[in-house]
Amino acid sequence: MSATPARTPPPPYYAVIFTTLRDDSAGGVEYADMARRMLELAQSMPGYLGIESARGAEGLGVTVSYWTDLAAIDTWREHSEHRVAQERGMRDWYRHFELRVCRVERARSFQRAVDTP
Amino acid sequence: MSATPARTPPPPYYAVIFTTLRDDSAGGVEYADMARRMLELAQSMPGYLGIESARGAEGLGVTVSYWTDLAAIDTWREHSEHRVAQERGMRDWYRHFELRVCRVERARSFQRAVDTP
Repeated sequence: MSATPARTPPPPYYAVIFTTLRDDSAGGVEYADMARRMLELAQSMPGYLGIESARGAEGLGVTVSYWTDLAAIDTWREHSEHRVAQERGMRDWYRHFELRVCRVERARSFQRAVDTP
Repeated sequence: MSATPARTPPPPYYAVIFTTLRDDSAGGVEYADMARRMLELAQSMPGYLGIESARGAEGLGVTVSYWTDLAAIDTWREHSEHRVAQERGMRDWYRHFELRVCRVERARSFQRAVDTP
């Protein structure tokens, strides 16, 4: 995942907003491996458009993934390896999460022109 | 803003996903003051439901605000003080942003039961 805003096609398309609060004791290496694998897996799924993710110093994580349609999101949710990660997340990693599925209706992009010296 | 996932009512409602890449040279104190004031202002607007925000170590920021309907988002976008901040952001603070307005259609919440000792 590059640390830049995702480039997505014109709306409509769908977004999954996954906001998480980690458990204080949540494992470092194991969690990082899972997160990396889930990103790799998501990117290989049909209908994947992009992802944006940040975790702040206070521990709140906001990850938004973008998809062509609801069917793509359903297929991703039900993927067997993703299901295992979901179970593990609820058992061991997340103290609290909110997951929201949304239809993107409007979008606007801004990019600064590169300054010439 | 508390560093926890936002508590929102059952869908449908709306989300504004604002993903930003800051300019390397973007001012610390001034930017922080503006961000704090915009949060305070958003919270005072009609139709505001909550906000979630994180900026990762690599500089990508993901802020999602929640609103009852599109009219509330339009009113917030057009607020004069917010307009000034938007202009300033494009001139001085953001190298790149994507702004998406979405209708939240499904939501799911998870909270770990507190372990008894």
